[in-house]
Amino acid sequence: MAKQSSGEQYFVAPETDNSDLYTPILGVDQNGEESELEVIEEKPLTIFLNSQEIVTSMTIGDHPRYLAVGFLLNQRMLYKSDKILSVDFDDELNVVVVRTSRQTNYEGKLKKKIRTSGCAVGTTFGDILVDLDKVRLPKTKLLTSWMYDLTAKINRTDSLYLKVGAIHGSVLCRQSDPLVYMEDVGRHNAVDKVCGWMFFENELSDDKILYTTGRLTSEMVIKTALMGIPILISRSGFTAWGVELAKKVGLTVIGRLRGQRFVCLSGKERLVFDKQLAYLESKKNAQSK
Amino acid sequence: MAKQSSGEQYFVAPETDNSDLYTPILGVDQNGEESELEVIEEKPLTIFLNSQEIVTSMTIGDHPRYLAVGFLLNQRMLYKSDKILSVDFDDELNVVVVRTSRQTNYEGKLKKKIRTSGCAVGTTFGDILVDLDKVRLPKTKLLTSWMYDLTAKINRTDSLYLKVGAIHGSVLCRQSDPLVYMEDVGRHNAVDKVCGWMFFENELSDDKILYTTGRLTSEMVIKTALMGIPILISRSGFTAWGVELAKKVGLTVIGRLRGQRFVCLSGKERLVFDKQLAYLESKKNAQSK
Repeated sequence: MAKQSSGEQYFVAPETDNSDLYTPILGVDQNGEESELEVIEEKPLTIFLNSQEIVTSMTIGDHPRYLAVGFLLNQRMLYKSDKILSVDFDDELNVVVVRTSRQTNYEGKLKKKIRTSGCAVGTTFGDILVDLDKVRLPKTKLLTSWMYDLTAKINRTDSLYLKVGAIHGSVLCRQSDPLVYMEDVGRHNAVDKVCGWMFFENELSDDKILYTTGRLTSEMVIKTALMGIPILISRSGFTAWGVELAKKVGLTVIGRLRGQRFVCLSGKERLVFDKQLAYLESKKNAQSK
Repeated sequence: MAKQSSGEQYFVAPETDNSDLYTPILGVDQNGEESELEVIEEKPLTIFLNSQEIVTSMTIGDHPRYLAVGFLLNQRMLYKSDKILSVDFDDELNVVVVRTSRQTNYEGKLKKKIRTSGCAVGTTFGDILVDLDKVRLPKTKLLTSWMYDLTAKINRTDSLYLKVGAIHGSVLCRQSDPLVYMEDVGRHNAVDKVCGWMFFENELSDDKILYTTGRLTSEMVIKTALMGIPILISRSGFTAWGVELAKKVGLTVIGRLRGQRFVCLSGKERLVFDKQLAYLESKKNAQSK
């Protein structure tokens, strides 16, 4: 790991002061009174890989390079071993062009489309299952105290979700430290941006935890596993196929993490109940003194 | 309208007793104790239009024919004027084949991909804007009392959301009556299933309201407008582009409908404040007597 995080210092934090990400809109409330609200942006971003147009994705518009590279990595159109020559973003056309030294051609692949619960494009089931079979996730531990600390820190973080709502967050964590907090209208985008950041920072995945506000569908499980991250945590629910894939690949999945409660659906061998619930109680008592 | 709805009688209600839609999974809770949970299913469904494979969508698996036809209609690959010869579902292969008398070929269209906040495939911006420009939505009124009644009725409805969670709902309504309640892991699927039902039932859109539990992104606004429904309501938030498109096409958009509160972002000319908040107060008082 190139840098060290301490406390709630993020390498990348939500850009709540970036007014390009939201816009004021005049609404009428239940009493017929006008009120101005800040509303999250949603803009098309078109991703090219070399000379080929791959996808147009709706995004809030921050970190277009991370999004493009992360998307291509998670779609297996780009590999960690690839040499990226350039990533150019044109903010007038809303286009990102990723250029590699390897020649790429996904003409055939793009004809096969999978529309997931969130969304993926250009990935076939065959590809996914073949690549998932190759994944070997490390036996990293997950202390329950980390989960409680992470929740508290993430909930305290000034985010676009708290400011304007209608957005999902994905947070890359290590032990009890949140490191990178990405947000987007689609949860798949937030994860792809984390993936792009890890690629550019040459970040290890073995000791990481991915925390997300959204539901744990098959797509989220697949992305996390392909990124090599052994632990996936959400405050929301999960689907049966998401859990099945997680079990197959040995990913630890924690759902419905709210307050003191959670449920571990897969990979419970990583769990260490170091504090249990007495920990939270003692913390509360200490704070109230 | 072919049939009449009275009170909370749905034409299509959530299939909470259909055990094909969820599966028991053994989890471990925060105390290290095992517990069995019902978890929503997520299965691939591949949609063919005549001889062409269009998309594989992740769905809970109910109403595959409605989903296929609704998806194709909302993607402008099928038109209301099309004569459908057959819609065959193979429940072993999880494939739906829609056959039309019109010859279809979307080879070129499928190369252009848009990944929305939810998800759409095979629709280009050009197509969307051209088709949206043609939409003429009727001047249907929206009484605020209907909204309060609808929320109460929908919240009281026995749904997969209440039973197992991790799912979105879309409810087709008329005045204060919910008529068709579809659920799915992706909110776009739930709307597509409503669209498919309307097509098969030859249902008018002019007098309808679409209520959804999910956020109002550009995709949801586009689908609703293309379906010809003049009013879109959500308990969740919205994006700036969703609101912009709604204004352009004259769609009434209500967001954050919770309890007595809501905000109207677009098309406020349809709103009639018939009861205002005194209505709810009097209702509460009546119930407590």
